[in-house]
Amino acid sequence: MAMRLSGAPVRDKILKYILLKGREAGVNAGLTVLRMGEKPEDLAYEKSIIAMGEKAGITVKVKLLDENMTDKKAKDLISEINNDKSIHGVLLLRPMANKEAEKAITENLAPSKDVDGITPSCMAGLYGADKTYFPPCTARACMEILSFYNLSPKGKRVVVIGRSLVIGKPVSMMLLREDATVTICHSKTSNLKEITKNADIVIVAIGRREAIGGEFLEKGQTVIDVGINVTEENKLIGDVNYEEAFSIVDNITPVPGGVGSVTASLLLLHCLQSCLGIIDKY
Amino acid sequence: MAMRLSGAPVRDKILKYILLKGREAGVNAGLTVLRMGEKPEDLAYEKSIIAMGEKAGITVKVKLLDENMTDKKAKDLISEINNDKSIHGVLLLRPMANKEAEKAITENLAPSKDVDGITPSCMAGLYGADKTYFPPCTARACMEILSFYNLSPKGKRVVVIGRSLVIGKPVSMMLLREDATVTICHSKTSNLKEITKNADIVIVAIGRREAIGGEFLEKGQTVIDVGINVTEENKLIGDVNYEEAFSIVDNITPVPGGVGSVTASLLLLHCLQSCLGIIDKY
Repeated sequence: MAMRLSGAPVRDKILKYILLKGREAGVNAGLTVLRMGEKPEDLAYEKSIIAMGEKAGITVKVKLLDENMTDKKAKDLISEINNDKSIHGVLLLRPMANKEAEKAITENLAPSKDVDGITPSCMAGLYGADKTYFPPCTARACMEILSFYNLSPKGKRVVVIGRSLVIGKPVSMMLLREDATVTICHSKTSNLKEITKNADIVIVAIGRREAIGGEFLEKGQTVIDVGINVTEENKLIGDVNYEEAFSIVDNITPVPGGVGSVTASLLLLHCLQSCLGIIDKY
Repeated sequence: MAMRLSGAPVRDKILKYILLKGREAGVNAGLTVLRMGEKPEDLAYEKSIIAMGEKAGITVKVKLLDENMTDKKAKDLISEINNDKSIHGVLLLRPMANKEAEKAITENLAPSKDVDGITPSCMAGLYGADKTYFPPCTARACMEILSFYNLSPKGKRVVVIGRSLVIGKPVSMMLLREDATVTICHSKTSNLKEITKNADIVIVAIGRREAIGGEFLEKGQTVIDVGINVTEENKLIGDVNYEEAFSIVDNITPVPGGVGSVTASLLLLHCLQSCLGIIDKY
């Protein structure tokens, strides 16, 4: 029987910190969300950010982008945002329908306002273990959950399944920074079971519902499930078979209520840190 | 008894390609080496690059930098180099005595001329698996040796020991790009022996002479030794105990005559590719 690593107390601690720290400093940090179109998952994430922003004292504004915006319009918009002193952080809801605009925004956003770590500067910073750049929030959410529950990855064998720029690679870089021994697995990995069974911590970011069952896991392990998959009945389930894993491992994050519930709070934390000019541990 | 993966034929194939390709295109590619001071290892590397440049038809020029150069002087120099159409590639001999100048050069060098992959853009490119940026030459040398000897890392378990930006991390990114399952180990890794013994390929970049002995290795493995250590008798030896490893594994690179002999040829290859505007496989 595992311990359920709920994201809620991790998130609440972060939100409380933001509110107190922001008040203490007497600042009013602002986050701008850039959205193109009306995708349900974008609207859901946006809604949760706005609600959390209210709790944490961060002003969240949404800017709707024209799907036909030109490259020049995108660059002008970002230049305006970079110069706007009331905006401390920017979130792009990706992928955007207009790829060229998305690229222009990503490449031109000021690294200091890149609170989700998507610009080349932030990527190079994370890769280079330079803690003055923001990491992607989902990757940091995994790290904050481990830290909150006193499950330090230092010296541990961590297996990361997935090599995306949103989660697999950034969380691997963050784990390395914390002195974990990191194995990055992916769709071309053979003998995955043998590899996961030898890990102390398994971070799963495959993007396929319940891809990891009990046969991949061992007693004593910690499992962080980053997957969010929607079933036909509109139920959210992870990349890990929770029931099976729960009966085997020592610690596991649920879906929903795990990693996903911490991500948005880190976006707001980064926004406050950008406003205060302090990046790094909160 | 292992097969000795000599770097010489890998290097010679690359140099031949550069010479032919350059002649065919009728271009005269130029590399500029930036050196500060007279460190013996810098002078040795510079000398080998100049000699290889002559063989490959690449013009190599050395620019000596003043140890007391200001940040502004460094930036002006790089701006001049970025605009100089006869310079297609730049190599910084690092570490430099003047850290501020080194930083200014690294941050301002045009990514297209960054033939050793040290700028933030090139690092972000490699991290993001964007093959239009040059990787660090030592990391690519490991990959070219594997490729030359038909030891594809695809689907293989590769253990990289070392997490530096010069070799450990970039070679890990290149291996991931080639669909290897990559484990990054370092000084804080526990049970290193157990981890290396389970690998198909072990890439060693620790920087400590003969740190990896036979007890870390198994039959069937390929060992790439990136270490170059100088003994009291001025002999070069690797991070792997070559004699012990040779009697156990299937394939191993020698030191000297392995990875180190391929590195400079890739610098020249990148230089030609920069000149031709073609980056990627040669």
